Amino acid sequence: MTARTLIALDVMGGDRAPDIVVNGAHIARERFPDVDFLMVGDEAKIRPLLDRLPGLAKVSQILHTDQAVRSDEKPSVALRSGRKSSMRLALDAVSKGDAAAAVSAGNTGALMAMAKLSLRMLPGIDRPAIASFFPTQRGESVMLDLGANVTCDADNLVQFALLGDVFARTVLGLVAPSIGILNVGEEEMKGREEVREAAIRLRRTHLAPRLHGFVEGDDIPKGTVDVIVADGFTGNIALKTAEGTSRLVGHFLKESIQSNLLAKIGYLFLRPALTQFRSRIDPRRYNGAVFLGLGGIAVKSHGGTDALGFANAIGVAVDMTINGFIEKLRAELEQVQSVLAQTGDDAVAE
Amino acid sequence: MTARTLIALDVMGGDRAPDIVVNGAHIARERFPDVDFLMVGDEAKIRPLLDRLPGLAKVSQILHTDQAVRSDEKPSVALRSGRKSSMRLALDAVSKGDAAAAVSAGNTGALMAMAKLSLRMLPGIDRPAIASFFPTQRGESVMLDLGANVTCDADNLVQFALLGDVFARTVLGLVAPSIGILNVGEEEMKGREEVREAAIRLRRTHLAPRLHGFVEGDDIPKGTVDVIVADGFTGNIALKTAEGTSRLVGHFLKESIQSNLLAKIGYLFLRPALTQFRSRIDPRRYNGAVFLGLGGIAVKSHGGTDALGFANAIGVAVDMTINGFIEKLRAELEQVQSVLAQTGDDAVAE
Repeated sequence: MTARTLIALDVMGGDRAPDIVVNGAHIARERFPDVDFLMVGDEAKIRPLLDRLPGLAKVSQILHTDQAVRSDEKPSVALRSGRKSSMRLALDAVSKGDAAAAVSAGNTGALMAMAKLSLRMLPGIDRPAIASFFPTQRGESVMLDLGANVTCDADNLVQFALLGDVFARTVLGLVAPSIGILNVGEEEMKGREEVREAAIRLRRTHLAPRLHGFVEGDDIPKGTVDVIVADGFTGNIALKTAEGTSRLVGHFLKESIQSNLLAKIGYLFLRPALTQFRSRIDPRRYNGAVFLGLGGIAVKSHGGTDALGFANAIGVAVDMTINGFIEKLRAELEQVQSVLAQTGDDAVAE
Repeated sequence: MTARTLIALDVMGGDRAPDIVVNGAHIARERFPDVDFLMVGDEAKIRPLLDRLPGLAKVSQILHTDQAVRSDEKPSVALRSGRKSSMRLALDAVSKGDAAAAVSAGNTGALMAMAKLSLRMLPGIDRPAIASFFPTQRGESVMLDLGANVTCDADNLVQFALLGDVFARTVLGLVAPSIGILNVGEEEMKGREEVREAAIRLRRTHLAPRLHGFVEGDDIPKGTVDVIVADGFTGNIALKTAEGTSRLVGHFLKESIQSNLLAKIGYLFLRPALTQFRSRIDPRRYNGAVFLGLGGIAVKSHGGTDALGFANAIGVAVDMTINGFIEKLRAELEQVQSVLAQTGDDAVAE
């Protein structure tokens, strides 16, 4: 395959932009030699960075703008006044078909609002969801929504299951991902109404054979299922709790190792193994949350990440592009449209 | 202080009852020499266990019943048919004033339903909450609700803040606990309506000076605040996600240590430090979820715990009793009653 892929980068987004964005692209280029970059942002700032990286400069073009969305800007304000911002122009490059995907480490709310406007929703999906994958005892799983929607109804949750399923198949390469809905118990009668209703509806779709049912919080790190469906409030809190707990345990471990001389000696022997251990829970490895349900690919990098983390976010965008995520999702949504419409009718008839 | 405290134990509740209950009491007795036990359950099973522990037998009395609530019993069924169950009689001993607190490792839903009926709600509290404490980077924090209420309104959240505050003061011994409401962002405009409304109302109470505002999932293990307020759905999922993540990181650590010979040698030096590390995240140490908002003390032990875990649940019940949790809470609720009524009126007027 020699077709080249163009990825649009919001070079001005993120706490340490533009450096981490350009350096992240530099790292990503090693991994993906067939990728070109559209660097959207202030040329006066981007050019000197590219001058030091001639290999990257060769596969990069700059789309100049001196406007950028601030990290604390309200999404509504960013939408109105940011039409020429680096974030918006990167997304517009995707909607116009110039670029295959956009990656930004900027303001999440603004990126979501702009992505909805620029890329539009796919038919059959009412609201976009934020998805990401993360390490588990069995490998990697996908969870969504991670914060786009603080409240969700059963329809939203059913749609998130469809989105997560296609994402797991195209990006994690799973043939038949198992799906679970996050709840406070495994029994059918447990939990919130919308969660119970979503389970009932999903049992009537093509996902039924792979629907595990309800999963609990500890099933997330266990890897009980490949796709975890949640409303954005619960999903966001679960994800951040997991990240924080992982850091806490690492902190306790460090304190214990430093507690006595014997342990410090042992640490010297253990260092290579602990480096491997740390890399398994390195949040940079799982950087790159994806907005699903839109007509194009938009990846959100963590705002505080470094170049390696940003390179991984680019990696997610490239994987989705190469594996034809949007095309697969469109085809699938057309197929299920009739099924979903039916379940909708059933639900009304009940 | 030589006054003796009587704790009622549901000896038949839990996966490994009655053994872990009696053995747990045996461990607790060492720590709390001034505590007596009311062992509620099947005398034919309890007596042989006590015969092997004469020290414990001396401070124990048996309240015989051959009925027990099954672990899979529906709360409504348990309520109707379990009036003579060990769980119910243990709670009734508290409501009658015979015992100071009840501890059970049985069916959570049944225990909650029975506790509400037997111990009644305190005036000013609409719904009980499940609370527990857990390790953080700064020490220990309290979170509630952990699953009693899958949906909550702003009133419930405000009441949970009051309950959690008194709990943190009496059990963790904090003079002025800081309070946070679990949300998806720290900004005032973020999150669900009931969460934002609860923050506004709490700013009008005596807790205002100690209200940190919103906290996110990673603030739980960080220990950003002493008391975390959440609805039972979110709180339950956050707690279980933290427990599961802690196990996952431990699992990764073990795999890394076993990955090569050098690391195994290092482990020998590190063993004492790692034992200390493990004890810091040992879930048995934080066993004992408390039902708050009731007119008496009811502690729920994890159903799958061992004797050491059950002893810790007894410890929570003893701490609450000795530190006069119910009396403090009653007094506080009377004081805030007028404040809460006012905020209620304000809210209507708005």
